[in-house]
Amino acid sequence: MKGKGIRFREVPFDPSIKGTPTPPVTGFPPFRGGPYATMYVSQPWTIRQYAGFSTAEESNAFYKKNLAAGQRGLSVAFDLATHRGYDSDHPRVRGDVGKAGVAMDSVEDMKILFDGIPLHKMSVSMTMNGAVIPILAFFIVCAEEQGVPSEQLTGTIQNDILKEFLVRNTYIYPPAASMRLVTDIFKYSSARLPRFNSISVSGYHMLEAGAPPPLELAFTLADGYEYLQYGIKAGLHIDEFAPRFSFFFGIGMDGLREIAKLRAARILWARLVKAAGSEAPRSQVLRTHCQTSGWSLTQQDPFNNIARTALEALAATWGGTQSLHTNSLDEAVSLPTAATSAIARETQLFLQKEAGLCHWPDPVGGSIHIESLTDEMVDESWKIIKEVLSLGGMTRAIQDGYPKKRIEEAAALKQARIDSGEEKIIGLNLYPPDQELEIPVLQIDHEEVLQIQLKKLETLKKNRSQSRVRQALQHLSKACRDEKENILERAIEAARNRATLGEISSAIEKVFGRYHAPAGGLSKIYAAHSMNNRYFKKACKLVLDFEKKFGRRPRILIAKMGQDGHDRGARIIASGFADLGFDVDMGPLFQTPAETARHAMENDVHFIGVSSLAGAHQALIPELIGLLKEKGRDDIAVIAGGIIPDTDARALFDKGVLAVFGPGTNLAKAAVELMKLSLRG
Amino acid sequence: MKGKGIRFREVPFDPSIKGTPTPPVTGFPPFRGGPYATMYVSQPWTIRQYAGFSTAEESNAFYKKNLAAGQRGLSVAFDLATHRGYDSDHPRVRGDVGKAGVAMDSVEDMKILFDGIPLHKMSVSMTMNGAVIPILAFFIVCAEEQGVPSEQLTGTIQNDILKEFLVRNTYIYPPAASMRLVTDIFKYSSARLPRFNSISVSGYHMLEAGAPPPLELAFTLADGYEYLQYGIKAGLHIDEFAPRFSFFFGIGMDGLREIAKLRAARILWARLVKAAGSEAPRSQVLRTHCQTSGWSLTQQDPFNNIARTALEALAATWGGTQSLHTNSLDEAVSLPTAATSAIARETQLFLQKEAGLCHWPDPVGGSIHIESLTDEMVDESWKIIKEVLSLGGMTRAIQDGYPKKRIEEAAALKQARIDSGEEKIIGLNLYPPDQELEIPVLQIDHEEVLQIQLKKLETLKKNRSQSRVRQALQHLSKACRDEKENILERAIEAARNRATLGEISSAIEKVFGRYHAPAGGLSKIYAAHSMNNRYFKKACKLVLDFEKKFGRRPRILIAKMGQDGHDRGARIIASGFADLGFDVDMGPLFQTPAETARHAMENDVHFIGVSSLAGAHQALIPELIGLLKEKGRDDIAVIAGGIIPDTDARALFDKGVLAVFGPGTNLAKAAVELMKLSLRG
Repeated sequence: MKGKGIRFREVPFDPSIKGTPTPPVTGFPPFRGGPYATMYVSQPWTIRQYAGFSTAEESNAFYKKNLAAGQRGLSVAFDLATHRGYDSDHPRVRGDVGKAGVAMDSVEDMKILFDGIPLHKMSVSMTMNGAVIPILAFFIVCAEEQGVPSEQLTGTIQNDILKEFLVRNTYIYPPAASMRLVTDIFKYSSARLPRFNSISVSGYHMLEAGAPPPLELAFTLADGYEYLQYGIKAGLHIDEFAPRFSFFFGIGMDGLREIAKLRAARILWARLVKAAGSEAPRSQVLRTHCQTSGWSLTQQDPFNNIARTALEALAATWGGTQSLHTNSLDEAVSLPTAATSAIARETQLFLQKEAGLCHWPDPVGGSIHIESLTDEMVDESWKIIKEVLSLGGMTRAIQDGYPKKRIEEAAALKQARIDSGEEKIIGLNLYPPDQELEIPVLQIDHEEVLQIQLKKLETLKKNRSQSRVRQALQHLSKACRDEKENILERAIEAARNRATLGEISSAIEKVFGRYHAPAGGLSKIYAAHSMNNRYFKKACKLVLDFEKKFGRRPRILIAKMGQDGHDRGARIIASGFADLGFDVDMGPLFQTPAETARHAMENDVHFIGVSSLAGAHQALIPELIGLLKEKGRDDIAVIAGGIIPDTDARALFDKGVLAVFGPGTNLAKAAVELMKLSLRG
Repeated sequence: MKGKGIRFREVPFDPSIKGTPTPPVTGFPPFRGGPYATMYVSQPWTIRQYAGFSTAEESNAFYKKNLAAGQRGLSVAFDLATHRGYDSDHPRVRGDVGKAGVAMDSVEDMKILFDGIPLHKMSVSMTMNGAVIPILAFFIVCAEEQGVPSEQLTGTIQNDILKEFLVRNTYIYPPAASMRLVTDIFKYSSARLPRFNSISVSGYHMLEAGAPPPLELAFTLADGYEYLQYGIKAGLHIDEFAPRFSFFFGIGMDGLREIAKLRAARILWARLVKAAGSEAPRSQVLRTHCQTSGWSLTQQDPFNNIARTALEALAATWGGTQSLHTNSLDEAVSLPTAATSAIARETQLFLQKEAGLCHWPDPVGGSIHIESLTDEMVDESWKIIKEVLSLGGMTRAIQDGYPKKRIEEAAALKQARIDSGEEKIIGLNLYPPDQELEIPVLQIDHEEVLQIQLKKLETLKKNRSQSRVRQALQHLSKACRDEKENILERAIEAARNRATLGEISSAIEKVFGRYHAPAGGLSKIYAAHSMNNRYFKKACKLVLDFEKKFGRRPRILIAKMGQDGHDRGARIIASGFADLGFDVDMGPLFQTPAETARHAMENDVHFIGVSSLAGAHQALIPELIGLLKEKGRDDIAVIAGGIIPDTDARALFDKGVLAVFGPGTNLAKAAVELMKLSLRG
C-alpha cells in the first residue's frame, strides 16, 4: 500500500458482459426473485433494529428487552467519538460521547454490552467503519472471554470505508491505508470467522445523502467490486471471501422502484462477481440488510411516519431483504424512545405474523410492471457502473470527486424540487398540519454519560499491565508498516491486554496519519431549478438589500462541529445559499467550537450556520457562542439547523441563537427570514 | 311483492358458465387488472373518509376542513336513530342520538350538512340502508333547493338491504318489502339520477363479522346478482341500471389475498352480469369502494394501527379500488378525533403523492403468486355462489339462514384460533405492550346533541303546513300499496313539505310493518377449536364449581340495547359461553333498558352481558342498573363488552358494572374472571 495509489482490475473486467433478461427465479443465479429458493417460507427476514443508548449498561438492558419482545438480531449503534477512534476522555469529543449510540472505550464496555447475551447464538451487526479494527478486536475478545470461539460468531461488521469518503465521513485514515484495514479483515475473517460477514457494502447512506435508486445501486455495487479486487490482490481466492460479503440498502417511499432496486441489485452483483472471476453461486449471491429511509420522515406530523415506514418496510420485504431495520416515528426529531422503538419493531412483526407475507417466496415476481422496472434499473445502473470502472474503479473515482458530485447534484435538485413544490411531501409542502398529537422526546444526560465513561476508563487503566499494553501497541504499529502482518490480529492482542479504542486507533494513526477531506466545489443546481419557488426571488432581492445596507454581501460559515460527519444538509445549505447570493464558507468537518469561532472571526462572517444531526448541539453551540462573546465578536450571529427537538431549540434561543431551522426547511424561505432579521436589527 | 316470498332467476342462470383464465388486462372484460384502462395514471382513487359528527353543523365544519386538506369525496355517517327510521325525539333512541354519526331528522338537517358544499361538484356517498327512502329524498330536495337538478348529482347510496339481514341489522321493514324499496330506487335513479350509483353492494360488514375473503366475495356478488334479478323483474333493462351498481369491500391484513380478492371480484361480477343477460362492458364492470378493516385494529398499542391501516390501504390500491376509507388509529377504542382522522387521511395522500403508485395502471399484474391467488379466489368463491344460487338466490338463502351460519362459524373459528394463540395478533396475544403512548379520546356530549335536535324538530314542525305534510304522507302510504307507483318519488314530495325522517318511515311502516329477526342457533365451533386455549378447561371447571355452589349453571343474558345492530361480538360471546357450560339467553336486537331488565328478571339470569359498539353504553347501562335496583334485583350482575374507552369504563364501574371486557378479549379468560368474581362474592 504505502499510499502509492490504488491498484485494481488485476482480474480483467469485461464491460461487454451483460446477462439476458432473467426469469423471476429464487435461489439460482442471477437471483432475480431472491437469494434463497424458499425465502421467508422457511426463514422470515431478521428483524434487526439498529440501536445504542449512551452507555453499554443501558444498551444491554434495551437489547435484552427487545429480544424478549420479538426482535431476532442485534444491531449496535456506536457513538461518534467511537466511530472516529477517540476515547471518551479525548478533549475533541466532549459533545459527542453517548450521543447517537453507545460509547465504547475498551473490551470491558463490549463485555457489558453483551452481558447475558450468548454470542454463539446471537447474530450481531455492528455499524463500524473508521474504528473497525479496535471494535472488531473487542468483539472477538469479548466472545473469547464468554468462551465462544470466533469460528462460531455470526453477524456483520459494516467495514465499508469507501462510502465513508463518499458520503458519511466517519473515516479516520487516508483511503489507501483504510483499504489495507479492510483487506486485513477479509484475510482474518476468511481464516477465523467463517460464519461472519466481513463487510456490509452500504448504499443506505448514499440514498440518505440524496442519491436516487440507480445511483445508490451503481456506486454501492462498484464499491463491492472494488473490495473484491482488493481481496484478490491481497492473495485471497475470490470464493474464499466473496460469500461473506453482505450489502445494505435504504428503502424510500417509491416502493415499486425500491422493489425493483433490490431485484436489480442481485442481478448486477451476480454479473459483477462473475466478471471478477467466480463461477460459484454462493459467491455471486447478494444478501442484504435494508433500512427504511430516515430522510423520508417528516418532523411535521410525526405520527404519519409510522405509515411511511410501514410502506417502506413492505417494499423491502417484497424486494427480498434478509434483514430489516424500521425507523421510529420520531427519528426526524430526536433519537427514538422505548415506546417509539416498540412501534417500529412491531411494524415488522405484523408483516411477518399478520400480513401473510411469509407464505410465498417472491410475491411480486412476474409482475409486468415490476419486472420491467427491474430491467430498467439494471440497465441504468449498469451504465453508471461502467462509467466508474472506466475511470479506474471506485477508489480512483472517489479521489476524482465524480460520485460525490453526482450525489450532490441529485440532492440539490431534489431540494430545489421540494422547495418549489414540484415534488410533494405531505405535511411539509402539502397540507401542513394545523394540530398535532404530542410525543415525548428522549433526553440524554450528556454529562452523566461522560462521567460514567471517564470513571470506567480510569479503572481500566489502573488495573492493567501498562508494559504489556505498550508492547502490544508497538506490535500493532509495526504491523501497519508490514503488509505481511495482519493488523486485526495485532489489535486483538492489544484488546486482550486492555488497550483502549483510542490507543489502538492512535497506534495505527501513527503510521497511516489522519485523513482530512479537501473542500468540494458547489454546484448551481439549486438556482437552476427554483423557477417555481416563490421565496427564491425574494431571498435574492433581500440579499441585495443586505449588500446595500452593510456594504458587502452576507457571508456565512457553514460549520460542522463535533464528530458528526453527516454533511448532506450542510452541503445543500452551502450550495443553495451561494446560489442566493451569499458568500459561503464551507467549514471542514469535525471542528471544535474554538476552531469554528477562529475560522468565523478570521473570515469576518456575518453568520455561523451550525448543522447538527447527532445531538451534540446542546453542548457545542453554547460553547461557540461563549467563545465569540469572550473575543468581543457577539455581532456574529449563530443559527442552527438539523435534527433539533423543540425543547432543545428553546434552550438554544435562551443561549443567544438567532434562528433554528428543522428538517424540511425551505432553503430560500430560511434565507428570507434570516435577511429580514438582519435588516430589521 | 306483498310478502309472497321472493321471485328470482327470471333470467335463467347457467351455472356452467365459467371464464377461461384471463390475462391481467385493465379496462376490458373481465377487468382482472382494473376497471379502467389507465387507472390511477389519469385519475387516482378518491380519498373518501366516512365520517359524521353528532350534528349537521359540526359535520359540515368537519367536511369543509377535510376537503381543504386534500380529501376528494364525502362519505356521510348517520347516527343509529336515523338508520332505524326514528326521529331524535323518539323515546326508543335516547342513547343513540348523535352517536356514531350525524343525526338527520329532516331536509333542514341535510341542508345544514351540505351548506357551502356545491352538490353538483361533490361526489357524496351515504351509508344508508334501512331509512334509505327518506335520506335519499332529503338529499335530492337539498340539491334541488341548492339549485342543482338531480341529473347532476354524483355519489353513492349504500341501499344494500340484503347484507343488513345478514350481518349489520340496520333494517326496518321485512325482506320482501325492503326489496321493493331497493327496486323503486333503481327505477327512479335510472330515470332521474343518471350519474349517481343507486346501490353499493357491500361485503365490508361481512368481513368485519368474520367472513374470510372468499365468503365475503361470494355473498356480496350473490347479493349483487339478486339485485340485478329484481331490477329486471321490475321491468328495467339490465343495461339501464347495472352500470350504476357499485361495490364496497373490506380490506384486512392478509394483503396479498386482498389484492387477489378485488381482482377476483371483477372477474366474477363480469361473469355474473353476462349470465344475467348483458353483453355490455359498462354493465359488466365492477367498480368498488374499499375500507380498511376496523376489526384488524387493536385497542392495545393503538399507534400500531397506523401501520396496519397503511398496509391495508396499499393492498386496496394495488387491488385497484376506485375510492378508499382508511380507519383512524383509535377506532378500536372510540370514534376518531380530528387529529387521528388527519393521520388516516394522510396515509392515503402519501400513497398518491409520495409512493409513486399512480405511475402505472396495475403494478402487480402478472405476478405469478398474485395471479394464482386470484384464480384460486375465483374458483373458491364461484363454488359458494353456485351453492347460493342452487338454494334459490340470496334472499331465500338468507331466509334459510345459510349465509349467516357460514359467517358465524367462520367468526367463531377465528375467535377460537386467536384465543388459543394459533392465529397471532401483535400486542393482543403476542408481545403485549408494557408501556403505551397516551391518546386523547373523543367525548360527545350526548345530552347537548339531543337538545339541539329536539329544538330543531320543534321549530320545523311549527313552521310547516301540517295539512300538506299529512297529505304527502298519505300519498306515500298509498304508493307502498301500489307497485305501479314509485315510493321514492312520493317520499321526495313529503320531504319538500318538511315531513320528518320518522314520519316518512312510519308512513311506510304502516303498510309494510317492522321486521323482527328470529333468534339464531348457536354452533359448537368455539369448543371444537379450543384445545390449545389454556383458559378453556379452567373456565369449564369453574362453571361446574358455580353449579355446585349455586344449584344451577350460570345463566347469562347477552343483550343488545339501543339501535346498534352490530352483533358479531354478542353472537360470538353467546356461542362461546354456551360452549363453556353457561345457559345463554341471546336477547333480541334493539332493546330498551326496560325490555332488557324485564327479560333478565323473567328468566332469572345471574348476569346481563351488554355488548356496545356505538357509544350508547354511557346512557343505557346506568339506566338498566337503575331499573334492576328499582325492582330489587340488583343481585343480577351487569357486565359490559365492546368498544368502551377507559374513561367510560371507569364511569361504568362507578355505576355498579361488575366487569368491562374490551375488544380482543379472550372469551374463556373472561369467563374465568367472571366465575372467580362470582364464586368469591
